[in-house]
Amino acid sequence: MKRRDFLASGALLAGASTVPFSASAKEKKSRSKYADYSGVDAARAKPVLKREFFPDPVIIESVELLRKENNFICRVRSKDGAEGISIGHPFISKQGYPMFKFAIQRWFVGKDARDLDQILYHAAEQNEKKQGVPMNVQLATLEFAVLDMLGNIADKPLGALIGDICNPNIAIYLGTLYRQLRDLEPEVSLEMMAKQVEETHAKAVKLRCGSANNLGDDKDNAPGRTEKLIRMGREKFGDEMVLMMDANWSYSPKEAIRIGRLLEEYNYYFYEEPLPWNWYEEQKIVCDALDINMAGGEVEANMHQMRWLIANDVWDIIQPDIFYFGGMIRSMQVANMAAAKGKIVLPHMSSGGLGYLYMLQFVSACKNAGPFHEFKLFATKDANGTLIPIESKDDPIKSTDGVVNVPTGSGIGVHIDPGYISTHEMIYS
Amino acid sequence: MKRRDFLASGALLAGASTVPFSASAKEKKSRSKYADYSGVDAARAKPVLKREFFPDPVIIESVELLRKENNFICRVRSKDGAEGISIGHPFISKQGYPMFKFAIQRWFVGKDARDLDQILYHAAEQNEKKQGVPMNVQLATLEFAVLDMLGNIADKPLGALIGDICNPNIAIYLGTLYRQLRDLEPEVSLEMMAKQVEETHAKAVKLRCGSANNLGDDKDNAPGRTEKLIRMGREKFGDEMVLMMDANWSYSPKEAIRIGRLLEEYNYYFYEEPLPWNWYEEQKIVCDALDINMAGGEVEANMHQMRWLIANDVWDIIQPDIFYFGGMIRSMQVANMAAAKGKIVLPHMSSGGLGYLYMLQFVSACKNAGPFHEFKLFATKDANGTLIPIESKDDPIKSTDGVVNVPTGSGIGVHIDPGYISTHEMIYS
Repeated sequence: MKRRDFLASGALLAGASTVPFSASAKEKKSRSKYADYSGVDAARAKPVLKREFFPDPVIIESVELLRKENNFICRVRSKDGAEGISIGHPFISKQGYPMFKFAIQRWFVGKDARDLDQILYHAAEQNEKKQGVPMNVQLATLEFAVLDMLGNIADKPLGALIGDICNPNIAIYLGTLYRQLRDLEPEVSLEMMAKQVEETHAKAVKLRCGSANNLGDDKDNAPGRTEKLIRMGREKFGDEMVLMMDANWSYSPKEAIRIGRLLEEYNYYFYEEPLPWNWYEEQKIVCDALDINMAGGEVEANMHQMRWLIANDVWDIIQPDIFYFGGMIRSMQVANMAAAKGKIVLPHMSSGGLGYLYMLQFVSACKNAGPFHEFKLFATKDANGTLIPIESKDDPIKSTDGVVNVPTGSGIGVHIDPGYISTHEMIYS
Repeated sequence: MKRRDFLASGALLAGASTVPFSASAKEKKSRSKYADYSGVDAARAKPVLKREFFPDPVIIESVELLRKENNFICRVRSKDGAEGISIGHPFISKQGYPMFKFAIQRWFVGKDARDLDQILYHAAEQNEKKQGVPMNVQLATLEFAVLDMLGNIADKPLGALIGDICNPNIAIYLGTLYRQLRDLEPEVSLEMMAKQVEETHAKAVKLRCGSANNLGDDKDNAPGRTEKLIRMGREKFGDEMVLMMDANWSYSPKEAIRIGRLLEEYNYYFYEEPLPWNWYEEQKIVCDALDINMAGGEVEANMHQMRWLIANDVWDIIQPDIFYFGGMIRSMQVANMAAAKGKIVLPHMSSGGLGYLYMLQFVSACKNAGPFHEFKLFATKDANGTLIPIESKDDPIKSTDGVVNVPTGSGIGVHIDPGYISTHEMIYS
């Protein structure tokens, strides 16, 4: 039985996400020279923001970027006095924040927030010389604040504004938090991971192979360790555990295929980004050669490239980063394109800031979200290492038997202490 | 006779650039599913910086970013007291300058400037989440200053550090300076252009069609005007004038092909960027369908994509922007890849700052530079609108009978008034 059928059987889903991996997802071999884009284009064009909740215009009167040292906060206010807040990305915001002031905010000020789909389209596509992750992070920061404001107006959580809530609880997998495990001996890193599994009852674990730097040759840059880790991972966690492997751009196409075949042998669920992010054509070669599900797309910033990657079946599982791709609405357009091709979405999110909350809100409304999502620290520090003080009307956000509850308050779903926001100062240029 | 053969005959070259457009350049129809990359990869790997001029290490002791309002200056100093200066990009530097401090400069400080090829490789490829034009502009700014310092040490102009001086004089074409001409009636804009031709004796003119925004349909977004401009341009300037057309991303593939056929009918030399910059596959479809030379690449920031565009014959004429692509050495690597496929290079450069000098230095050493290059204002203002005070040991830089002399002083070739630099203050974060 193929891994995707195993998952589709529901044995591992633990009642969390509702749409398992579709059996039709893997149409790997392209039949003509150019893909048929009609399905993904129609999916991309579907409206995302639910205008029906807002009978009257919501004019964005002010957009502010606040800063304290390395940390950034966005505050938006409507003409009628509604307010929305977002916390910037923990380590990219600082790199390109002038783009917020000089490239992004002018697309929002004075506009009707109900036109957010179109505002984002223009801000992303007509800033053509600034496209990339640093600009998208600014775009996402502003979008999160606008959505928070709209959620406050409609008294709905953010997820409900961009889709129907289909995943009120979200199953987690363990993984990227332990980046350093990549450099340890397999025995040591697997033992540490096993302790976390015991604590969280996670039903899925992502390991890391290679040493992250493609050397431009056909060698493994962590020779010996990779084979051992793949085999020992399966032995350690047993046949019931869903195992995944992140290769962090370590390989050439030839070596990527060799490692992929090993992963197939040990029944790993997916194989993430063996090549550098923009090796589009080479990744297609790898995907065509392998049967294991290929996962990727976290550093992709660009709608037209994402469209190509999806329509050409370069990935089986799409992993847009909600910050890096420029916000929830653009990421939902990616999810809709993926759905048109029977693919699932496992959004990527860096740890730090309130990223885990943005991800939970997104996944709660994403009908083709994968069966489990990356676990990050819940009590999260901002870019200065300060704990962000939040309150939730729900139970504390935590993992119970490997499943996390999405907060149900309005907007982002939690309340951020105004005293914390007031420690930040407005940026004028 | 095809346009490229006409040019290859030398009739229009006026003794300027030495390598006309190669007759072997246009192998448009791809024969296998994937291109052969061996030639371009070998070309990309060739060393660019001429280490032989520097017997001893040149340790970069300090890197400073200076600012006055919107204008940025980079100053580098070696351990032995040599100094280099560059002027930032006139309108992109401000958008992403924190990347200079937090992503770029650490790759340079303390390093031997003779390893500049490798330093640039790591700074560009290992900042994978920041890739794009805004980061590359910072990278280029720092590289220009290091090259200026190296030129001062070796007492050679910058071009001589990155190649052999093959184009001491550079023929110009008229064009992008008059962006607003796009919106005028063809009669009016052609009359204005004719006056400039009279003044400069330029032998080549670039016109603009469409209205720059792709509408996502198969219509011309400047209906009627385009056909008229194409025909009247040829009538106005006669058969001897080299005419080019920039379509500024106005079209769908279908409409791009229709306009391209009109341009072929009126014997235009090249057809620039009819589609948005990142419509790679679609641009290949357009190029395959047409016989006219396709020109593009000015907003491309990424080496791996540029490699694909060149190896897959998506463009016949490559137009890297020396700022947007991250400096002279990376742009020369593009030129070397282009040469491996028999293609020519016409670098793009925004007007403002000292961009025209960086472009002249680059073209002076580029063996497959095209027969004429875009003319920009010589007396150039910085990002604050202040004239940058420079002195040259050569005659004033000017166009004589459509040909410009490249300054021959050390480094950038001219001396920037220290009083001007001192009006700028150091940026710490």
